[in-house]
Amino acid sequence: MNDLDVLCIGNAIVDIIARCEENFLIDNKITKAAMNLIDAERAELLYSRMGPAIEASGGSAGNTAAGIASLGGQAAFFGKVASDQLGGIYAHDIRAQGVVFQTEPLEKHPPTARSMIFVTPDGERSMNTYLGACVELGPEDVDAAIVAASKVTYFEGYLWDPPRAKEAIRNCAAIAHEHGREVSMTLSDPFCVDRYREEFLELMRSGTVDIVFSNEHEVMSLYQTASLETAVDALEADCKLAIITLGERGSIVARKGQRVSVSAIEINELVDTTGAGDLYASGFLYGYTNGHTLESCARLGSLAAGLVIQQIGPRPNLSLKQAGIDSGLIKV
Amino acid sequence: MNDLDVLCIGNAIVDIIARCEENFLIDNKITKAAMNLIDAERAELLYSRMGPAIEASGGSAGNTAAGIASLGGQAAFFGKVASDQLGGIYAHDIRAQGVVFQTEPLEKHPPTARSMIFVTPDGERSMNTYLGACVELGPEDVDAAIVAASKVTYFEGYLWDPPRAKEAIRNCAAIAHEHGREVSMTLSDPFCVDRYREEFLELMRSGTVDIVFSNEHEVMSLYQTASLETAVDALEADCKLAIITLGERGSIVARKGQRVSVSAIEINELVDTTGAGDLYASGFLYGYTNGHTLESCARLGSLAAGLVIQQIGPRPNLSLKQAGIDSGLIKV
Repeated sequence: MNDLDVLCIGNAIVDIIARCEENFLIDNKITKAAMNLIDAERAELLYSRMGPAIEASGGSAGNTAAGIASLGGQAAFFGKVASDQLGGIYAHDIRAQGVVFQTEPLEKHPPTARSMIFVTPDGERSMNTYLGACVELGPEDVDAAIVAASKVTYFEGYLWDPPRAKEAIRNCAAIAHEHGREVSMTLSDPFCVDRYREEFLELMRSGTVDIVFSNEHEVMSLYQTASLETAVDALEADCKLAIITLGERGSIVARKGQRVSVSAIEINELVDTTGAGDLYASGFLYGYTNGHTLESCARLGSLAAGLVIQQIGPRPNLSLKQAGIDSGLIKV
Repeated sequence: MNDLDVLCIGNAIVDIIARCEENFLIDNKITKAAMNLIDAERAELLYSRMGPAIEASGGSAGNTAAGIASLGGQAAFFGKVASDQLGGIYAHDIRAQGVVFQTEPLEKHPPTARSMIFVTPDGERSMNTYLGACVELGPEDVDAAIVAASKVTYFEGYLWDPPRAKEAIRNCAAIAHEHGREVSMTLSDPFCVDRYREEFLELMRSGTVDIVFSNEHEVMSLYQTASLETAVDALEADCKLAIITLGERGSIVARKGQRVSVSAIEINELVDTTGAGDLYASGFLYGYTNGHTLESCARLGSLAAGLVIQQIGPRPNLSLKQAGIDSGLIKV
């Protein structure tokens, strides 16, 4: 099998996206800017209160894979959909983007996962995720040949929510390291970090994970500190390569004493923050697996993130490769 | 039952929307800017060639109903979905917009209709529609009380494609006229007009239909003439009220010797023409059923159409009522 740049592993989720006013979040006890896990009953209740929506394939690591492919990279994805209409849409979209996706769909209940995403007037997204078929992702879904062929295996911290995905991840990490590859994760969400703090720290400190993506809220949650600097220092010490995104203030890359800071790109209008972190990881990992400097990796991350937040939906509706060429970050 | 402004009847379709290059249409023999009817096999083939997409509820008359509700009008909709995930999405979206929608979903095969819409760089949309469950719409789906309560019953010419919908329409028209209501139709598409020319003319000349919406291509197809003027004169003679949309050149309203012309609104960027005609009808019919002058009706049509073509997807993602207030066309 030819080398792949990045294998992404995550919850395979179709996003259902609608705008709402700030009060809607308060009235419905939705934690703003977070990923709120919900069960089938609450999913039905919230949907009954949601305005007219549009649907788009999403899921954090799936978005990252789509972004890498859009940049011209070779990406694969492991994630569990069901054999239903939403599962068909999910599989179509990720394959149509050029991502290798071969995970067997679930033939029985539950249905494909969906996340109801409410976008407030400030452009912030608040997610309400029903995991559905994602709870069935397990070690049997690991295609060892793809793991071995991928320069980086990247997974989302959200995978600690379903029961058996973490087993799949540990297997993948072992296979990757046996083949001299690297393993990366995103901390996903401050509340997710709070649920699995000790396990995430163990993944880093045991060397199971080499490269960690985090935003400022997640890294401060991980180390339970109000000081960003303290948190970044701690993360730098706990992994080989740490990338911390700071929203409109750009990002920091930290590797054993070496620090690189880059700014965010200028945007015309913040429309919807959905996918910002996911696409930052796309840009960074595309660069990282294609011989770019750390600064160029971070600039590619800023570019992809900056583009996705100027549209509705979590995957860019334009060619990121072209955007990279236009900005001088990708040479043709 | 309280009065409703407009009952809309049409094919209940979920749109699957992606951008493509001009060549894609040629390579796949898709007639540009038209509604191409496709079977299940071709739907599968085209989907396999389609890029990553987003999904949004659509269907011509359904879009019109959603637009009327967004303007603050009272709208109802008859249309057939299946009991599947796409059908659930369709029903959610139209009800969440405030439209009365009670048509029983189909419990068996075929699935909910979908239209693959390819948007070229010029913003033009080319539709490929698999009718699915829509073929089962029939007279048994007519709720006479809703027809009787609606000031206008509006249906799409596309309903002549499924086998039994036309029976439902004839029943509705009879009920509407018994109650002193008016009946309206859109000619839908030049090729649709070509398929059902004689029947459409008979609907008008028999007085089954009072108000006709058409764009310039449709009306010229109806009368098989290259002269817009000849076609408009003929349509004016064949129905009580004729409305002809002319794209960026605005629209003409013709009522027995009285002519009103209004311009299109200025737009910043043409993104996607999907829904332009449907939303023009929303604006016009909202005005018509709420005591506006013909000029104000046409201006409301221009406003709603001009807004929907500056976004992706066939239903405006902002409040048309607010837009109407801001432009001085709706008084509060």
